Amino acid sequence: MANFGFAYLTVVSPFEVHWREARSAVGAPELLHGAKETGSLAEAVAACTLVVGTGTLTHRKAEQRVVQLPDLAPIVRNELDRGGRIAILFGPEKRGLTREDFSLCSLLVKIPTDARQPSMNLGQAVAVCLYELTRAEASDSDQALLLPALGTEPNPPSGTLDLLAEVMEQTMTAAGYSPRSMQAANQHDLRLLLRRLQINSPDAKRVLGIFRRILWRLQHPRT
Amino acid sequence: MANFGFAYLTVVSPFEVHWREARSAVGAPELLHGAKETGSLAEAVAACTLVVGTGTLTHRKAEQRVVQLPDLAPIVRNELDRGGRIAILFGPEKRGLTREDFSLCSLLVKIPTDARQPSMNLGQAVAVCLYELTRAEASDSDQALLLPALGTEPNPPSGTLDLLAEVMEQTMTAAGYSPRSMQAANQHDLRLLLRRLQINSPDAKRVLGIFRRILWRLQHPRT
Repeated sequence: MANFGFAYLTVVSPFEVHWREARSAVGAPELLHGAKETGSLAEAVAACTLVVGTGTLTHRKAEQRVVQLPDLAPIVRNELDRGGRIAILFGPEKRGLTREDFSLCSLLVKIPTDARQPSMNLGQAVAVCLYELTRAEASDSDQALLLPALGTEPNPPSGTLDLLAEVMEQTMTAAGYSPRSMQAANQHDLRLLLRRLQINSPDAKRVLGIFRRILWRLQHPRT
Repeated sequence: MANFGFAYLTVVSPFEVHWREARSAVGAPELLHGAKETGSLAEAVAACTLVVGTGTLTHRKAEQRVVQLPDLAPIVRNELDRGGRIAILFGPEKRGLTREDFSLCSLLVKIPTDARQPSMNLGQAVAVCLYELTRAEASDSDQALLLPALGTEPNPPSGTLDLLAEVMEQTMTAAGYSPRSMQAANQHDLRLLLRRLQINSPDAKRVLGIFRRILWRLQHPRT
């Protein structure tokens, strides 16, 4: 909960020993100290305008409207925008929410799990649901669209790439890499290769430095 | 992993006692029985064409390209579509991935967590990442629109990049490019540089050929 910025936790009929230990642990997050405790689920959600039950829903027929988790965020946002209060319910680790618990829900959300292993660990189910509700804010679709123009470093100007290609070519020639007749084709390939790489400016300088040093050594062999 | 239909797990230098117990536990899922074990991370990811590191990245400056988790799925799908193999790396619970681990990554993914509580439990981090990669299939939203226009050639596997880095390093040493004391830093930088380039497989082979020839010439100078 704290990882995704959620602050309001209510626990219903907790096992007292574990609950006391968890709250009093050194470094227990603020939300545990401030958590409410109620004797019934109905009491816990009494003030909420939208109560969302969670589960894999594999072995039972849902009696409410069911949405897939990836489609939950707009519903939650809409409810918040019109001044609502939302509760998201998670059942105990072993048995999940009961049919009676679900009867307090106006909506069920299904975490899309693999049919061969539908049942999730409680903490992981909470993490996945709360991640889903905050993920839209973190998405930077611009960045995805800009692929593969990488990072914040600018691409080098075309002239730098040509200089790099020239030094690389001289180095290849000095190393006897190709017969003279092949050089035109190599030059063309090298240009294309350097542009495919989308090398950034500092990296282009580094590579240029490496090749200049190699070329110098090829021209001044140690004997 | 099993919840979201992922099957291939490789563990690097696991703590033997815990690992043996986990694998032999009654009801241990198939993916634990089939899990691979390697002695090094480089070995674990050698066959992978896209290696993605995970972390909160709060206390360090990333040396690679970083994407937000909500933007990861199209990148992964694109790499799979062109025949690539992907590894997603998670660090140990206590310290996460190291800078050296990250040097094998071509991409870092940031889980968007709250600034006051950025550090996630390992199991929950895995759940959130794998949920993200499968969520598109479960919803109606059209993520295909975000598909980046990458080339069709697959990236070379991580092991090929390591080989290329090694030959480049030998070449640089043979050319007297750096004093011996600089080599560790250079090796790290070279790894990162090669992964930033997102070089494709045929180009990686071309560059390897060029460096092998140059290295040979440096070792057999014409007098």
